[in-house]
Amino acid sequence: MPLSPEAQAEIDAARATPQPTLRAVSPGMEAHLYTAQPVLDHGFVRVIDYMGDDSAIVQAARVSYGAGTKHVSNDEGLIRYLMRHWHSTPFEMCEVKFHVKLPVFVARQWIRHRTANVNEYSARYSILDREFYIPAPDHLAAQSTVNNQGRGAVLEGEEAARVLEILKSDAGRAYDSYEAMLSQDGQQGLARELARMNLPANIYTQWYWKVDLHNLFHFLRLRADAHAQYEIRVYAETMCRLVADWVPAAYAAFEDYRMGGVNLSAKGVEVVRRRLAGEEVTQETSGMSKGEWREFEGVWG
Amino acid sequence: MPLSPEAQAEIDAARATPQPTLRAVSPGMEAHLYTAQPVLDHGFVRVIDYMGDDSAIVQAARVSYGAGTKHVSNDEGLIRYLMRHWHSTPFEMCEVKFHVKLPVFVARQWIRHRTANVNEYSARYSILDREFYIPAPDHLAAQSTVNNQGRGAVLEGEEAARVLEILKSDAGRAYDSYEAMLSQDGQQGLARELARMNLPANIYTQWYWKVDLHNLFHFLRLRADAHAQYEIRVYAETMCRLVADWVPAAYAAFEDYRMGGVNLSAKGVEVVRRRLAGEEVTQETSGMSKGEWREFEGVWG
Amino acid sequence: MPLSPEAQAEIDAARATPQPTLRAVSPGMEAHLYTAQPVLDHGFVRVIDYMGDDSAIVQAARVSYGAGTKHVSNDEGLIRYLMRHWHSTPFEMCEVKFHVKLPVFVARQWIRHRTANVNEYSARYSILDREFYIPAPDHLAAQSTVNNQGRGAVLEGEEAARVLEILKSDAGRAYDSYEAMLSQDGQQGLARELARMNLPANIYTQWYWKVDLHNLFHFLRLRADAHAQYEIRVYAETMCRLVADWVPAAYAAFEDYRMGGVNLSAKGVEVVRRRLAGEEVTQETSGMSKGEWREFEGVWG
Amino acid sequence: MPLSPEAQAEIDAARATPQPTLRAVSPGMEAHLYTAQPVLDHGFVRVIDYMGDDSAIVQAARVSYGAGTKHVSNDEGLIRYLMRHWHSTPFEMCEVKFHVKLPVFVARQWIRHRTANVNEYSARYSILDREFYIPAPDHLAAQSTVNNQGRGAVLEGEEAARVLEILKSDAGRAYDSYEAMLSQDGQQGLARELARMNLPANIYTQWYWKVDLHNLFHFLRLRADAHAQYEIRVYAETMCRLVADWVPAAYAAFEDYRMGGVNLSAKGVEVVRRRLAGEEVTQETSGMSKGEWREFEGVWG
Repeated sequence: MPLSPEAQAEIDAARATPQPTLRAVSPGMEAHLYTAQPVLDHGFVRVIDYMGDDSAIVQAARVSYGAGTKHVSNDEGLIRYLMRHWHSTPFEMCEVKFHVKLPVFVARQWIRHRTANVNEYSARYSILDREFYIPAPDHLAAQSTVNNQGRGAVLEGEEAARVLEILKSDAGRAYDSYEAMLSQDGQQGLARELARMNLPANIYTQWYWKVDLHNLFHFLRLRADAHAQYEIRVYAETMCRLVADWVPAAYAAFEDYRMGGVNLSAKGVEVVRRRLAGEEVTQETSGMSKGEWREFEGVWG
Repeated sequence: MPLSPEAQAEIDAARATPQPTLRAVSPGMEAHLYTAQPVLDHGFVRVIDYMGDDSAIVQAARVSYGAGTKHVSNDEGLIRYLMRHWHSTPFEMCEVKFHVKLPVFVARQWIRHRTANVNEYSARYSILDREFYIPAPDHLAAQSTVNNQGRGAVLEGEEAARVLEILKSDAGRAYDSYEAMLSQDGQQGLARELARMNLPANIYTQWYWKVDLHNLFHFLRLRADAHAQYEIRVYAETMCRLVADWVPAAYAAFEDYRMGGVNLSAKGVEVVRRRLAGEEVTQETSGMSKGEWREFEGVWG
Repeated sequence: MPLSPEAQAEIDAARATPQPTLRAVSPGMEAHLYTAQPVLDHGFVRVIDYMGDDSAIVQAARVSYGAGTKHVSNDEGLIRYLMRHWHSTPFEMCEVKFHVKLPVFVARQWIRHRTANVNEYSARYSILDREFYIPAPDHLAAQSTVNNQGRGAVLEGEEAARVLEILKSDAGRAYDSYEAMLSQDGQQGLARELARMNLPANIYTQWYWKVDLHNLFHFLRLRADAHAQYEIRVYAETMCRLVADWVPAAYAAFEDYRMGGVNLSAKGVEVVRRRLAGEEVTQETSGMSKGEWREFEGVWG
Repeated sequence: MPLSPEAQAEIDAARATPQPTLRAVSPGMEAHLYTAQPVLDHGFVRVIDYMGDDSAIVQAARVSYGAGTKHVSNDEGLIRYLMRHWHSTPFEMCEVKFHVKLPVFVARQWIRHRTANVNEYSARYSILDREFYIPAPDHLAAQSTVNNQGRGAVLEGEEAARVLEILKSDAGRAYDSYEAMLSQDGQQGLARELARMNLPANIYTQWYWKVDLHNLFHFLRLRADAHAQYEIRVYAETMCRLVADWVPAAYAAFEDYRMGGVNLSAKGVEVVRRRLAGEEVTQETSGMSKGEWREFEGVWG
């Protein structure tokens, strides 16, 4: 259970007291506000606040393009046009703030996206809880033999059991030591900013993460992708569902043009054209490297 | 009057229909939503949307610093502490979106602040209106004789009249030419993206400008400063008043620590210490250059 | 001629005195350093400084991916892999600084790219020169009848002559007024920060613009594109040639994957697949809007 | 010893082969290029590349302010003027790239500065080395009793010995487990991207970190400050020494106006003025909170 009863009570209270506003309101997002969506074994994502909706994107675009945009018959069509032509600034006019609880090794990957605002729980200042990510058995994967940064088959039997045992006991021991070093019972107690160094990367941290819709889409495209590590992908997928309810038209365009879309290189365009003209093209005649051809065939057969 | 009757009617309609939300609501900002605050002769600033309030800053800080922040007795004290110690990330958790109408030469100065989202009216796409900034007589200033980028006394008499006449007639003529080149009456009509090059820098443009509170404060510190050019300062001052109503505690801290604050160099600290100890310090014995000493005396006498 | 004899003499002097360095050196870029590449009638682009070369990209990637990257047989292959998989951070490890002279209306479009460092000539502080962009006759285009932000046929005959006459005389008059208002001959003289408002958008300004290679590629993809306005495209094209000599492998990958590449939506992928399977697909059966289909056919016939 | 003999040989080779360049060269920085400056027990900072020098700052400022800057008699004076008046863009015209080896918990603090380019060693892709930060005995500090995020006295005797023993044995055990889980000897071997979660925050990572001088100064002001955690401060102090040799005039101005400078609030200015006028001011009559007064007295006695 990701939230304490106290935290849940606070959320329930916040959800019970709507107030009037003149701002743009997204009914789909209001329904999610404050509620923790569980992710992994102890993590969650919850929406704390948002700014704008599909109409805000359209409104900003019409400021830019003036009367000229009137010929696009409807908002959905205009949003698709903007997405297709990489007009990113109207999407930047929407903003969202999440509260996320996540393992430190996921946070380290996540923070590489710099175009967001972050307030993370400070282990220099405060004491972290005894909560560690321990993979579910069906996510305990072997190293891929073909891709250095990928996973292979799921571990089985004794090996799986041994790994789980190691992860649990090492985490427990590290936390016991953390507490022992911090303790001021009969000793001075090590500074928090030092004691934290003993904690492993699967301990949970939490942060507020605020980002505009354009940069969020960029994050989701990379992290909800099938090649992303499972442990960050489940956060991205959860956020995708929230965004779909927040800005349905923008999300649909994002799915069509970004998540489901394909980038073809000039060489790739040429090969598809030759195939459409009936030609048989092989890696040797494609001008592509073997690796590139493998990826190309992954999409086009 | 900066807004057309149609625009005013749209604003009135938007203001007439509050909707329920579970988000943080700032009553002070709700009162300003959509309403155009006139600036200069044809410009305005109006708030289109906002995210967060004083509590949102406190809430984000408490995520970072955990239970440790509990000892600060109240929200206002914590906000002052954050501002004093340059803890900027909690202020980044608030966001605001303005619609601004402003002369192009002001827009050019404004856009140098890069940490904001912008959608500007496109003169490539659409046709600009015949609206130019013409300074009021008491803002028609002579070049400063001591500061290359400053103003001196207000122009008077014939010179003032001549300048106003030039600004008006040149602007009018430039716009007439703009229309004449665009016209498709008996001719092809020049492309909009080319015709715009004939328009002077005092023509009005407009944009949506969205920024987080930390970066907004940075903008306001520079642009609401007495040394900023009058024509951008009046926009900054208008925004200051709006922000004061939006996040009163944060704005009060900003006023005390930033707008009203003073940065002393190591040399300056030394001179003040010597003075406090009763010593008479002159420019020669201060270790400062003449220019620096002049600025120092400007603050400390 | 874009540079004064004095400026040219300074450049010649700078180019005459190589100094030893231990840093990465790009011979292709050294050959361009400081030399002004003429653009438009009075503009130019010149490289003032650069950091890194193709090897710096590879080196940064190998820090990230460690021994794992060794299996990519050569640097060029690794750079292509990075570009194909949107691994942008290694490209950020190269940096370049340009000195650019350009019309104000081009500068206004350019500055929308915020991820760069800029120092622009200040017309608040100094006096601008009497130099205006006047299009060459074959770039004096009519408004497009199909695209609000595009150009149609070149203007001809009397209309072209009239437009050129207007642009020249309005610019000349605006500058005369600028000088008259600034003059301190028998009058106080208007402040520079005010007088500049009378100048049209085709006056030339200049700036130092510094950017990393990843963000430069993003800029070039948008601005060297056939849909970009001619007056900014010629700057982008000039920079493309410089970058090709600076980081040849990275530029080749950029050309293949970005400039020459095509983004297909999920719908587009589906249509190509159906065509490859021999099916005849029309707009009606494609699921695309008319506008989208037109663009799709523009690429695929 | 922070570098392997192979790494040292590579550095020696790079340092042995100067090449001619026409770019700005900083002799002080050339002397440091590639050489690892040891930090903590296994970490280092080394300069990989740089762009610009003190003159580049001046040159950029003169582009902005034109002939107007000529009245500042020399480069050093102009640089001091720019720093004093928060003209940050000329400092952005210099760039530097560091290779840093640092404990993960330091990296986590460091990365909060988002305005830099980063390529970090990927533990998803590659295997980390068995290297952990173990504090030297005189940096093994107790938790501060007055400041949640500070250190108190150095631990002594048995407690110190116990903490060191815990840190060493827990790190060793975590790494043994990491290797055991990764091993493909008689088992499949856990995926690297999962196994890394067992590693503690004092393991060393490394990255390339590239930043412009303005943002570097901002980083150094916060991290070379006496209140920064010792383990990041020693990195900042090492970089300070490198920057002092790279851009001596800019660094001197930074020391005077930023590192050695003091920010006074409006209330603080008022109190100093009253004191200068001979008045006795106490916390009660200062208008400051107790905490603020304590900090004020820390500077002014």
